[in-house]
Amino acid sequence: MKSPICEMFGIEFPLLAFSHCRDVVAAVSRAGGMGVFGAVNHPPELLEEELAWIDDHVDGKPYGLDLIVPNATALQAGPVDKDALLSMVPEEHKNFAADLLEKSGVSTNTLEQSRREHLHFTDNLTPHGAEAVLDVALAHPIKLMVNALGVPPEIMLQKGREHGVAVGALVGSAKHAARQVEAGVDVLIAAGGEAGGHCGEVSTIVLVPEVVRAAEGTPVLAAGGIATGAQMAGLMAMGAAGAWCGSVWLTTSEAETSQSVKEKMLTATSADTVRSRSRTGKPSRQLKSPWTESWDKEGPAPLPMPLQTLVTEPALRHLDKLADGGHEGAKELSTYWVGQAVGLMNETESAGRVVQRFKEEFAEAYERLAEALGE
Amino acid sequence: MKSPICEMFGIEFPLLAFSHCRDVVAAVSRAGGMGVFGAVNHPPELLEEELAWIDDHVDGKPYGLDLIVPNATALQAGPVDKDALLSMVPEEHKNFAADLLEKSGVSTNTLEQSRREHLHFTDNLTPHGAEAVLDVALAHPIKLMVNALGVPPEIMLQKGREHGVAVGALVGSAKHAARQVEAGVDVLIAAGGEAGGHCGEVSTIVLVPEVVRAAEGTPVLAAGGIATGAQMAGLMAMGAAGAWCGSVWLTTSEAETSQSVKEKMLTATSADTVRSRSRTGKPSRQLKSPWTESWDKEGPAPLPMPLQTLVTEPALRHLDKLADGGHEGAKELSTYWVGQAVGLMNETESAGRVVQRFKEEFAEAYERLAEALGE
Repeated sequence: MKSPICEMFGIEFPLLAFSHCRDVVAAVSRAGGMGVFGAVNHPPELLEEELAWIDDHVDGKPYGLDLIVPNATALQAGPVDKDALLSMVPEEHKNFAADLLEKSGVSTNTLEQSRREHLHFTDNLTPHGAEAVLDVALAHPIKLMVNALGVPPEIMLQKGREHGVAVGALVGSAKHAARQVEAGVDVLIAAGGEAGGHCGEVSTIVLVPEVVRAAEGTPVLAAGGIATGAQMAGLMAMGAAGAWCGSVWLTTSEAETSQSVKEKMLTATSADTVRSRSRTGKPSRQLKSPWTESWDKEGPAPLPMPLQTLVTEPALRHLDKLADGGHEGAKELSTYWVGQAVGLMNETESAGRVVQRFKEEFAEAYERLAEALGE
Repeated sequence: MKSPICEMFGIEFPLLAFSHCRDVVAAVSRAGGMGVFGAVNHPPELLEEELAWIDDHVDGKPYGLDLIVPNATALQAGPVDKDALLSMVPEEHKNFAADLLEKSGVSTNTLEQSRREHLHFTDNLTPHGAEAVLDVALAHPIKLMVNALGVPPEIMLQKGREHGVAVGALVGSAKHAARQVEAGVDVLIAAGGEAGGHCGEVSTIVLVPEVVRAAEGTPVLAAGGIATGAQMAGLMAMGAAGAWCGSVWLTTSEAETSQSVKEKMLTATSADTVRSRSRTGKPSRQLKSPWTESWDKEGPAPLPMPLQTLVTEPALRHLDKLADGGHEGAKELSTYWVGQAVGLMNETESAGRVVQRFKEEFAEAYERLAEALGE
């Protein structure tokens, strides 16, 4: 297919797959799209291991990486005091989480230890940590680095230019898009309010044309709500250079999504997600469950990032493990980030088959327009 | 263009324009789309006058009508006791509205009288009133009746069949779509959460494919967020049979939108709307203003329909009048229903020009896909 995205990465089909699962990343790249490995929480040694695995399984096809490299100001702030961070989590929040678990018969005695372990992700936010991650990444044949949080710092843009690696950024408004273009990013990902995970409120079909106008020629990937090749074609008809999907891979056969959450996703309708601050402190879209409903209805006000995460992640990971072991209470509470596209995700397919299906649906969508126009 | 919508109505371009302004309705129909006159609050004699005007200005082209005809159960409930309704509006709500106006130097002495006058719309909700409106409508050459609230009652479907007038309905979920198809509607309008006025939460690009799947062949118009022909083409690529737009007409030269609100809309971004229960009691999307922000932040809980409307409509119509007379406080407070597409509405055009622009952008969008596919 002809698209600035295909040219930039040397790929056949401009479909980018954001996934925390290396198998999905490799499968999508092999199928002609491009996998982007979500490595926000990976320490350098684990990242090295994962990228080496991908290199071995991607058949020489290009792939990318999604990181958080904080901007320069934050980088200058020096190392994070983990004990101080832990002590800032109020008892009220820890107790609310523990009570919810206990009411469903879920043990809570490991939470405090998991909370401490979860803190390793702050290492990536120090100047040394961020550089270490970048150095590991750039020793692999990656083609794209996406900064998941704000404008990429100069060090990321500079290292990208040195290594011939494109730098991308997620945006939720035309204003942010203009700021990213000015900073020099190579690809914008316009993520609508229907997207899973952190998202704004403006919907994909409104945001994409707004961002395309603001991007002044920088290619824009459409994101949010996309689970079919017909939607991808529709958004490219609106000016996007391709699509960035996250949710659709969560129910693939390769995905490491917990079995219980996968089953919920396959039966969920598009109305079964909620945009809530209760998971990370910032609005993020996720599957509705008694966990999200309790937090939103009667939970304490969400803490600023990353404190809320220190309350919720240990609890939710514990739930996933128990749920997959058959614990009914844990199954009920379990949830994960997913966009409204979950309503269109009704069967388990392999990631490669999803790419193939997108290509077929894309062609059908084009034929639909051609027929409407009598071409 | 080839589309079940073009065939059904004998129109050239499957773009339907919902508008309370008869000039817009006639202009869109003349330009090859189809205007749909919003007449929810019109007593029969006023409706007769408006439709006669449209007949005289539409050059024999088809047009439609948007009504509320309550379902059979509601129709059996008998006439509405207006005094009883008025007495159900709490002082707290009336005072909150009056205080907001007074703080901005806006007089409030006419509100009570306007509240009483506004009640005439309940006449249309009685069995006699609903039939009177239908009889007026069906004496004109309308091609479509859309029921703005729920499943159309049997009398509407039956009269539609007798007169060869298609019946349409707005839906915000696949479940509602299935129910409407079962009742026998001829056209579904899938309205996403980015739409102006009453709306759900599921976005247009997710809702349209879901509704198309549920519609089992009944044509689906895409609605919500659409202000360009490229978006229309994109949604038709996803399976819609055409587009239904409301917001985009509000800033046309023909529109009767208050000048102050028009100016706000032309400069608004897509982030400047809010989905709030404060205007009618049900969630509806509108331009953010100090009025909506005060209600949402510190106002009393919205009343059930139609009581909240009896508080807000008289105040907001009063504001529009004063704002257009140059009253600064009224200008600031003023607001109107509009979707997120407002971010794409940046200049005043005639309604006919909007249709023409849609056609051009549609063709460009198709070319964009053709080029991507190397066709």
